[in-house]
Amino acid sequence: EILAAIRSALADGPLDGRHVLVTSGPTHEPIDPVRYIANQSSGAQGTAIAAALRDLGARVTFVTGPAQVPPPQGVTVVRVETAREMLLAVEAALPAEAAVFAAAVADWRVANAAGQKMKKDGSGRPPALEFTENPDILATVSRMGAGRPRLVVGFAAETHDVERHATEKRIRKGCDWIVANDVSPETGIMGGSENAVTIIDADGAEHWVRMSKTDVARRLAARIADRLKRE
Amino acid sequence: EILAAIRSALADGPLDGRHVLVTSGPTHEPIDPVRYIANQSSGAQGTAIAAALRDLGARVTFVTGPAQVPPPQGVTVVRVETAREMLLAVEAALPAEAAVFAAAVADWRVANAAGQKMKKDGSGRPPALEFTENPDILATVSRMGAGRPRLVVGFAAETHDVERHATEKRIRKGCDWIVANDVSPETGIMGGSENAVTIIDADGAEHWVRMSKTDVARRLAARIADRLKRE
Repeated sequence: EILAAIRSALADGPLDGRHVLVTSGPTHEPIDPVRYIANQSSGAQGTAIAAALRDLGARVTFVTGPAQVPPPQGVTVVRVETAREMLLAVEAALPAEAAVFAAAVADWRVANAAGQKMKKDGSGRPPALEFTENPDILATVSRMGAGRPRLVVGFAAETHDVERHATEKRIRKGCDWIVANDVSPETGIMGGSENAVTIIDADGAEHWVRMSKTDVARRLAARIADRLKRE
Repeated sequence: EILAAIRSALADGPLDGRHVLVTSGPTHEPIDPVRYIANQSSGAQGTAIAAALRDLGARVTFVTGPAQVPPPQGVTVVRVETAREMLLAVEAALPAEAAVFAAAVADWRVANAAGQKMKKDGSGRPPALEFTENPDILATVSRMGAGRPRLVVGFAAETHDVERHATEKRIRKGCDWIVANDVSPETGIMGGSENAVTIIDADGAEHWVRMSKTDVARRLAARIADRLKRE
């Protein structure tokens, strides 16, 4: 890993010196000092993508929530907890030529998060939690005017109707590509070492066979390099 | 660690051959296939306690939620996700001479957890989550008639009025001891390597100075061995 980082820093790669942003991992949204809401995400796929982009010569900023896997070597790591922190970190990291939003960001946070540990009140009823929608990082960056990355890639973790949901998501968010995968528990993809993805772009859907997350990352990084070269 | 496990299996310890149950880690309560509610808990203190009891010769059953630190060697590990699974695993592991409930169990779970990933409906409002109280593992075991462990030890993670809350908790739950600690973020205890605990029993409160979680575990294991010897 360290050798790969050194090698890529010295070699000429197709993304040499280009700045690419990658988000990864879950976000944690606090309920009180000891409880939080989280998304299932090991951070494995986002980490592999950042490493693959680095290996092609990119200068990678890696914005990561509290993930299980350690971040790659040879990238600039920015650690965050919540969706709002992640948006701030992303905005601070721009401009970039491409942005890959692989993080599993919580759609909602608790509006009335408590500064002290919430107690059972003996009623058997939980404290009333009020939710509010988190900022939509993918849509925010996709809709930027000046300063929008030339290529914005979103992820869709779906459990049913994967291609339809992902195609709709690409239009709704305004991003260029969606990397869609089926995270139904029976696939073993979530927390596993393999992934089976569909790439949705303006031309349609491209189904990739099931392969290791490392191979998905390499293939995606090569596709990104190819796209950035073309313009 | 492996050597310690072998050594304790061969040596004569004060808890030789006695069965002790330890719970550890957080629980994860699903909202849908990709979202869950969790408690902050690395599992470090519970893991250290299980290792310390093993080192005194105990036969340890270690029931653990999804923790960050790996379980100790030389104990029987039972992995669970939710509070309800943890209660079932605890009941299956009994009888035991002592039970130490170090896990940070979620008080509530989502009653209407979804089998498919919940979608934003465009209203800006989150899906309505209904909560229901989880089983109280500590109280359930403390109030067992026949088959109750001779010593039941609970934990209290508090952010304010630590001693008062823990003293009330001991009475309310019916356990013998409470190990209370202050998990306010400014203490750095949660996720850290040190702990500062107060042991609450029928005689009052015993304050221990701040020390490593390993030392807290050793001292607690010795106190447990001493107590089991006395009857």
